[in-house]
Amino acid sequence: MKGVVCLSKDLIQQMADFKKYKIATLGSHTALQILKGAKDEGFETICICQKGQKRPYESYNVADKYIEVEKFEDYFEIEPQLIKENAIVIPHGSFVSYLGFANVKKIKAMHYGNRDIIEWESDREKERRWLLDAGLKMPMIFERPEDIDRAVIIKFHGAGGGKGYFIANNADEFYKRMKGHPDAGKRFVIQEYIVGVPVYSHYFYSPLSGELEVMSFDKRYESNADSVGRIAATDQVDVGIRTTYTITGNVPIVVRESLLPKIFEMGERVVEASKKIVDRGMWGPFCLEAVIDPNLNFYTFEISARIVAGTNPYINGSPYTWLRYNEPMSTGRRLARDIKEAIEKDELEKVLG
Amino acid sequence: MKGVVCLSKDLIQQMADFKKYKIATLGSHTALQILKGAKDEGFETICICQKGQKRPYESYNVADKYIEVEKFEDYFEIEPQLIKENAIVIPHGSFVSYLGFANVKKIKAMHYGNRDIIEWESDREKERRWLLDAGLKMPMIFERPEDIDRAVIIKFHGAGGGKGYFIANNADEFYKRMKGHPDAGKRFVIQEYIVGVPVYSHYFYSPLSGELEVMSFDKRYESNADSVGRIAATDQVDVGIRTTYTITGNVPIVVRESLLPKIFEMGERVVEASKKIVDRGMWGPFCLEAVIDPNLNFYTFEISARIVAGTNPYINGSPYTWLRYNEPMSTGRRLARDIKEAIEKDELEKVLG
Amino acid sequence: MKGVVCLSKDLIQQMADFKKYKIATLGSHTALQILKGAKDEGFETICICQKGQKRPYESYNVADKYIEVEKFEDYFEIEPQLIKENAIVIPHGSFVSYLGFANVKKIKAMHYGNRDIIEWESDREKERRWLLDAGLKMPMIFERPEDIDRAVIIKFHGAGGGKGYFIANNADEFYKRMKGHPDAGKRFVIQEYIVGVPVYSHYFYSPLSGELEVMSFDKRYESNADSVGRIAATDQVDVGIRTTYTITGNVPIVVRESLLPKIFEMGERVVEASKKIVDRGMWGPFCLEAVIDPNLNFYTFEISARIVAGTNPYINGSPYTWLRYNEPMSTGRRLARDIKEAIEKDELEKVLG
Repeated sequence: MKGVVCLSKDLIQQMADFKKYKIATLGSHTALQILKGAKDEGFETICICQKGQKRPYESYNVADKYIEVEKFEDYFEIEPQLIKENAIVIPHGSFVSYLGFANVKKIKAMHYGNRDIIEWESDREKERRWLLDAGLKMPMIFERPEDIDRAVIIKFHGAGGGKGYFIANNADEFYKRMKGHPDAGKRFVIQEYIVGVPVYSHYFYSPLSGELEVMSFDKRYESNADSVGRIAATDQVDVGIRTTYTITGNVPIVVRESLLPKIFEMGERVVEASKKIVDRGMWGPFCLEAVIDPNLNFYTFEISARIVAGTNPYINGSPYTWLRYNEPMSTGRRLARDIKEAIEKDELEKVLG
Repeated sequence: MKGVVCLSKDLIQQMADFKKYKIATLGSHTALQILKGAKDEGFETICICQKGQKRPYESYNVADKYIEVEKFEDYFEIEPQLIKENAIVIPHGSFVSYLGFANVKKIKAMHYGNRDIIEWESDREKERRWLLDAGLKMPMIFERPEDIDRAVIIKFHGAGGGKGYFIANNADEFYKRMKGHPDAGKRFVIQEYIVGVPVYSHYFYSPLSGELEVMSFDKRYESNADSVGRIAATDQVDVGIRTTYTITGNVPIVVRESLLPKIFEMGERVVEASKKIVDRGMWGPFCLEAVIDPNLNFYTFEISARIVAGTNPYINGSPYTWLRYNEPMSTGRRLARDIKEAIEKDELEKVLG
Repeated sequence: MKGVVCLSKDLIQQMADFKKYKIATLGSHTALQILKGAKDEGFETICICQKGQKRPYESYNVADKYIEVEKFEDYFEIEPQLIKENAIVIPHGSFVSYLGFANVKKIKAMHYGNRDIIEWESDREKERRWLLDAGLKMPMIFERPEDIDRAVIIKFHGAGGGKGYFIANNADEFYKRMKGHPDAGKRFVIQEYIVGVPVYSHYFYSPLSGELEVMSFDKRYESNADSVGRIAATDQVDVGIRTTYTITGNVPIVVRESLLPKIFEMGERVVEASKKIVDRGMWGPFCLEAVIDPNLNFYTFEISARIVAGTNPYINGSPYTWLRYNEPMSTGRRLARDIKEAIEKDELEKVLG
């Protein structure tokens, strides 16, 4: 009888511990699933909103508290509130992009995930070294326009939503299209254009269990890349259309099941390689962005070392998470569960970084 | 004790009230989710089927009763039965298209939604006035073929499934393609062709709560628009392919989360504007059909003031409705719930029109 | 009281009966949903994996037992184990492709579905006779390249994932593209290329109930067919891109509801016709692979007489199965339920073949 009472006390203690923490994020990108997931795991949630952008979060009822800022860049002004609330901040794609890489380092609130990895994700050359070190196949990079000997895509550093990316087949076309381009002054990379279908693989790696999970897949819905094909070729030529790659949304997909062993392996290698480049490596959600060519080769062109918007179709679970979990498991919720388990095991420091 | 008994009596009364009504619709378009949703809310349902088209409704077991007609245009012959059954009729896309705008006005059975708005939705010029009045950005309209100075799309009035729509870049192409076109005699509109991705936003506005909800999003799956891009450009030119826009289905999508505040605002403005043009305005499900360009501008080209087939992927709930509801909530079910709540509050007249 | 006890005994007997069987399949294609579905129905499951490919099945926890083989072609070496385990083998797309048509006939373990139908599915001419006999509209076949008078697609027999398929508009193009083609030596068919959208309809026909169900729909996600359209026409021509059709995944879709009666009818006719060509006909899951043209004609170009990978988006149920079932019903689970019901009715022989 005594044993039972003791256990019960521990349980109460644990639950009390976990209730002391709140989950907070910026109201954008994947905040809906992060906050909903946190509530489903029993946390209180805080949504940091830009003025006039609270409406969706209220309508979908995902936050217990709202903190309004003029713009997300003002995050540091309200950070003391987050610290006072004992909130754990969840970074997402817009987070880094609004705060800037250098500023993320200055965050004083508890932060889920390893901030040191952002340096490797944000710098195309370091990112490339990491992924090649993990044994992934990547598109070739051309140092100089004069070297272009095949279809290439020109990607500008820090371009939000792939805006301004363009295709060229040789140096001439490169210079013609770069001339007068709005981003002409920015740094860019000349990448081999792999003709194949884009597939974004969503992973979750828990530092508590040491296990990698494949959560789901998506393809992006890009303007105008995903609509130029709706215009017959002759009309396109008449109208002089060029492809652009602004992300407007995401489409759920599943991949050929025989590709899954390779997809697991790729993710595991990337996690392993991350441990060599930064202390403690990368954990939590991440995404490999690849093109699959007609011979079923994966050409990875980018990694996102955090939750991606491609997981948004799966707020109520993906075909894959429904296999493993007997409840709706979004990537946002998986993340909250990782935090909860860390608190319950008294290992919170393992998931903060 | 007496209080409790009274309450219980009221409850029984309410439930009895609500059980006195049935939900009916034409067996097509979105009838599966409308009838399933009504059953999930506890209503008995009636499916009005064309001869030989009952099979899906029986197989999916969504109707308690079937009324067969030779063709949907014969609706008025069976309407007395609906009235006798105390059925509330739910209009959908095929409803107006089969009965015709003028006939919808003659419906004597209880009808969910405001029939007065159909006049504004069915007339391209009135529709345009409404949406511009709501502050929405729309594609330009060209009065005369001679004015065409960019890519335009020619849309025929009342064309089922976008059949016959075509693209032209100038007056010459316009006349060449119009010559011998099967719909050449019909009224048409010359609309600026916005190069960007189509996004259909599904809304629900309850006149009881006065609150607007964003239910889900889709893109259409159009023949052959969504397959011409699968043919390499050179082959297309050889084969002489032209794009057509017959709707064959729908693909689920989610939108970039940072666009949601704007999407809520657009919907709210349209509801507000509707109150200025018709008594009591528009309520229930509606859809804004837009193209998002690479600068993330929404160009709305049409409104459907009723449930759209784009909600069909979400019979078991959408990523968005799962945020707000802890049960599967299709647009069809949301609609049935609106009716149920209206009955329970003794405000049924608020949702009929 | 006695009656109750008897019933209870029967029930216990039945349950014991059903627990005596296990469900087994090759770890690829649709194994995740087949094994998960079988577990959901209460069966123990066996996954036959190629060395190094067990990871996904373990991570998603769908099998109670794993049998490893060097390659799937070694199936017959481990078959005695399956027989000893009293396992029912579920065939899927990769099953026939790995074992080969002739070898499937040699399977001695219990096999779900009618093996005799594979001969009709695997031979393009027999398949065509079957589908035409069922009254389906099909693309024209051209006997000789010289007869090509429209866009055609050249399909090689037994090409995995549509690899190597190409388009030609006339005999000249045909010969030019066939020259030096890696599959030039293989048998091929010259099929009219229907310009319209591909739609894959997933059916389930239970020999116990004699009822046909429409489970779901998908479109394939093919490399590079589903990405060439993302490249502007002029760029495509410059780069000299040709379309290929390697399947990399699947995209969930719903179809226009008014097409459902025709889709049910097509499926029922195909089942009827199957009974004329092989003893007992076809049962279980199958798929009609069609293109819908802008006039809403279905051109069926192929049948898969077994579960297809297009059902993978629906591991937690499809919009259609959620109408009929009040629980998540994948095609894999539906199949397991058919087996379970057969065992409980003591009619297992009805589903084996």
